Amino acid sequence: MSDLDIRPAVSADIPAIVAMLADDPLGAQRESPDDLDPYLTAFRRLVDDPNQHLAVAVRQGKVVGTLQLTIVPGLSRRGATRSLVEGVRVHADERGSGLGTQLIQWAVDESRRQGCQLVQLTSDATRTDAHRFYERLGFTASHVGFKLAL
Amino acid sequence: MSDLDIRPAVSADIPAIVAMLADDPLGAQRESPDDLDPYLTAFRRLVDDPNQHLAVAVRQGKVVGTLQLTIVPGLSRRGATRSLVEGVRVHADERGSGLGTQLIQWAVDESRRQGCQLVQLTSDATRTDAHRFYERLGFTASHVGFKLAL
Repeated sequence: MSDLDIRPAVSADIPAIVAMLADDPLGAQRESPDDLDPYLTAFRRLVDDPNQHLAVAVRQGKVVGTLQLTIVPGLSRRGATRSLVEGVRVHADERGSGLGTQLIQWAVDESRRQGCQLVQLTSDATRTDAHRFYERLGFTASHVGFKLAL
Repeated sequence: MSDLDIRPAVSADIPAIVAMLADDPLGAQRESPDDLDPYLTAFRRLVDDPNQHLAVAVRQGKVVGTLQLTIVPGLSRRGATRSLVEGVRVHADERGSGLGTQLIQWAVDESRRQGCQLVQLTSDATRTDAHRFYERLGFTASHVGFKLAL
């Protein structure tokens, strides 16, 4: 498969992005694809923040993948800037196509362009396939990820 | 111990913050407290970013703790905003005083004020004491944290 374009998301992409967020064993329980308003509100906030990069992968005019890259400056590690990857999704029709690898490679390349020295992400402990995927791409499972719902 | 103040960091706090970042089994290998320039550059970038909150805990005029809170808007979880906690340090003289708990409580309270629905952080897999600490504070070790150095 060819002609893949990875580009910044625009508001017209939101329905396709939300459909991918919801088409997932964990996402199915916590997304509301029938009510896009909260997503559009959040999207405007992302667009206004120069440290936020919401990307979509598009093939033949169809949104087939997404991820969110956040640039996080900081003091640790001699003032290193790091990036955070969230919300990685690949459309069901594209699984096994190598698109996930291309999306993460895009995130790594963009992180380098932004001067980051570290890329980080967390993956739910139940997503064991995803863990092998990130390790194949050179990531190290060096940390435990903690969450607190408010 | 009393009279603890948790407030936004100012540039005069940087030497004390960097000393704490370096006084740590992992930080000792990756910080440079004798060269503050990269930290001051990074600090200016934090100050200019409304989603960054670098805090210090001060007792009797002395900086005794720090953490960095980053507000991360996003589409996942119905457009939920999350916060990310990084660079948590408590001065050696204060360990066991409850200051770590007060710092994390500050981060949780500030996250609520900022409208976050989730607080997240990662902790190096070797920091087993820290893991018990976060679980006592109600965090769930639900994720695996991956890092890629660039």
